[in-house]
Amino acid sequence: MKAYKDMDKEELLTLKEALMEQYKAEEAKGLTLNMARGKPGFSQLEPSMPMLDVINSESDMRTVLGNDTRNYGDLDGIGECRKLIADMMSVKKDNVVVCGNSSLNIMYDTVSRSMTHGVNGSTPWCKLDKIKFLCPVPGYDRHFKITEHFGIEMINIPLYEDGPDMDLVEKYVNSDASVKGIWCVPKYSNPTGISYSDEVVRRFANLKPAAEDFRIYWDNAYCIHHLYDDVQDEILNILEECEKAGNPNMVYIFASTSKISFPGSGVSAIATSLENIKYIMGQMTIQTIGHDKINQLRHARFFKDIDGLNAHMKIHAKLLRPKFESVLKTLEDELTGLEIGSWIKPRGGYFISFNAMPGCAKNIVAKCKALGVILTGAGATFPYGKDPDDSNIRIAPTFPTPEEMAQASKIFVLCVKLASVEKLLEDM
Amino acid sequence: MKAYKDMDKEELLTLKEALMEQYKAEEAKGLTLNMARGKPGFSQLEPSMPMLDVINSESDMRTVLGNDTRNYGDLDGIGECRKLIADMMSVKKDNVVVCGNSSLNIMYDTVSRSMTHGVNGSTPWCKLDKIKFLCPVPGYDRHFKITEHFGIEMINIPLYEDGPDMDLVEKYVNSDASVKGIWCVPKYSNPTGISYSDEVVRRFANLKPAAEDFRIYWDNAYCIHHLYDDVQDEILNILEECEKAGNPNMVYIFASTSKISFPGSGVSAIATSLENIKYIMGQMTIQTIGHDKINQLRHARFFKDIDGLNAHMKIHAKLLRPKFESVLKTLEDELTGLEIGSWIKPRGGYFISFNAMPGCAKNIVAKCKALGVILTGAGATFPYGKDPDDSNIRIAPTFPTPEEMAQASKIFVLCVKLASVEKLLEDM
Repeated sequence: MKAYKDMDKEELLTLKEALMEQYKAEEAKGLTLNMARGKPGFSQLEPSMPMLDVINSESDMRTVLGNDTRNYGDLDGIGECRKLIADMMSVKKDNVVVCGNSSLNIMYDTVSRSMTHGVNGSTPWCKLDKIKFLCPVPGYDRHFKITEHFGIEMINIPLYEDGPDMDLVEKYVNSDASVKGIWCVPKYSNPTGISYSDEVVRRFANLKPAAEDFRIYWDNAYCIHHLYDDVQDEILNILEECEKAGNPNMVYIFASTSKISFPGSGVSAIATSLENIKYIMGQMTIQTIGHDKINQLRHARFFKDIDGLNAHMKIHAKLLRPKFESVLKTLEDELTGLEIGSWIKPRGGYFISFNAMPGCAKNIVAKCKALGVILTGAGATFPYGKDPDDSNIRIAPTFPTPEEMAQASKIFVLCVKLASVEKLLEDM
Repeated sequence: MKAYKDMDKEELLTLKEALMEQYKAEEAKGLTLNMARGKPGFSQLEPSMPMLDVINSESDMRTVLGNDTRNYGDLDGIGECRKLIADMMSVKKDNVVVCGNSSLNIMYDTVSRSMTHGVNGSTPWCKLDKIKFLCPVPGYDRHFKITEHFGIEMINIPLYEDGPDMDLVEKYVNSDASVKGIWCVPKYSNPTGISYSDEVVRRFANLKPAAEDFRIYWDNAYCIHHLYDDVQDEILNILEECEKAGNPNMVYIFASTSKISFPGSGVSAIATSLENIKYIMGQMTIQTIGHDKINQLRHARFFKDIDGLNAHMKIHAKLLRPKFESVLKTLEDELTGLEIGSWIKPRGGYFISFNAMPGCAKNIVAKCKALGVILTGAGATFPYGKDPDDSNIRIAPTFPTPEEMAQASKIFVLCVKLASVEKLLEDM
């Protein structure tokens, strides 16, 4: 395979013509495929259906402690569900509050509360001139939307294969008191799929923040979302590491069962220090009388324990592997040696992150769209939707069927090639 | 019956002695009864149990429009649930967004959003020196807690039998631009049980607010919560009246099925103008990917339509009537003619509001507590927990059984009598 960059103009023009013919053939098919969001596929929902039978009109609706889940109470979640989710998050039950159906909502509320009331008694952020968050990139667009919504300035931090650039993180956090947070997806990162090394987690725990109200927003969204039974990533326990480092209150951990049971009908949770929980509960008791405890009971009784959760995730892994592998094989088969893109093979999570030649991502996404393949908007993985290199594209292989995924991948590599040729010609 | 106020000291002292004997007898019983919160009784939860069978592993999980409720989507709620709740709230389906399990949470979020982002583009309240809310009193303690939490100054407005003092409301709203809202429970008011007259609703709709971001927070919590089949309150449609008056965006209406299906596992909604909804959705899409649609489907399929909801509420009414009547009968039998307290006989809702002689409420609540009967804290029905007259007590008859309610009522009137005698003696 000759790298595109080594081709001369004539070679590129010939190549372009051939690619354009394929493009037109694909265009004629009029496909509609969506790889835009990290949305579980239909087949992943089926294994959770028996959960809907676990609670029925004959059920004993009381918790292990005897509380009636059908009535008000248990603002911090019912005991058995807290235990289940605590085990999933690798923390102690007392450090977990189980909430409603959306961990994103907990993150939003956490930032919103900091804006209006500060953090554990600090000055409300809305009273300060400038608030900044560090954003490892590429990252999760919905994180960035929250901070953007609140007018928080976002600073890009490069994300490497072992985690964020910690030199840069330390520089900002330890010197700038207006830096109040950092968004992290520490395991099977959205979208690159990498997991933070032990060294990175320890450096996080040992930060010496200039701001007393600095917090790490640790979105452990894919904590048990492995793709393989044998090769699985594990990350250090950030809560324990923060305690050891004398920073017990420095981290909020978020997780949910949205991509375990049902998206939108799962349970979500925040795990943090007891001191943080006390402060959070003081606000939560104003906000709501309680969360959906029947659904908490449904989850606790269906999954039973962490072994039940892990067994369930093995079913998901089996369904997801062919989809991921279909994309990865196409990328390898079609792009190896062309030097027009790079990607990481993830061992879990929901995404494959593709780095095109700088200046090509928008064009690739537009070309795919024209052929009926919807990708996450180029730039979405960066704060303000602005990828400085116009290079990163997030591929979400979970929702389409394996067959659709194969078709979509073919179209994707075609568009990558065509956009790269166009770019090289343009730059000549 | 001789009114207590017409008794001389000797008569009062004799009376006190007799009451103290009864008091000691009750004390010896060591009861534990809770009339503190508007919490449905056990018997009210049973009729909703078949709802848990409506959705099971064999169910077609798609909405009428074909969307899979098990996956992400339908941020504003699934169509059939929006229709059901719209009919319950007497508004059009397009004016309703169905959310999670808690209308209190929607109210909190509505105020919180106004603090951080203003109302439909107005200046964020956190940037203003002073924000005020009008609070018809006695009212709902959780409303007041929200505004207190955000540092909003609360102004007491007397609540009469046909609604708030509208002269005062107009005076404040139409002249003071720092008045941004008013908390209303327009039907079967919490706690007095009164419903707003058509004249009052029209005067609300025709307010000419000094603040463009003034809103009426219309918590229609008890919209179909009648106690009787024959005598039912109806209120004018505030959304329509606001449209007619040229104030289409002036009202947010809140409701939920917390006291219809399961408290904590129901569905909640906000109804307002399309313009307001557009603004709210712009924020909601940052906050969450969506609410629990399976639970929305469960509600839509179980209740089917407004007739199903009303039929269900007739079952509740039958269960609640004896409890309310037990309290009311005891009040009538034991207090008529004594001139030491007044109350309104509600036709719906969850409470009976009792006005003791000024300066007696705290003492009555404390005495009841000593006898094992927990009431809502005296003062709770006022902003900052401060009843200027120390007179109002909220009685919540729904949770105890009718037998417990009869016992508790007996203790309540005993404590009312004793506290009144003590007060009269003290003032001599």
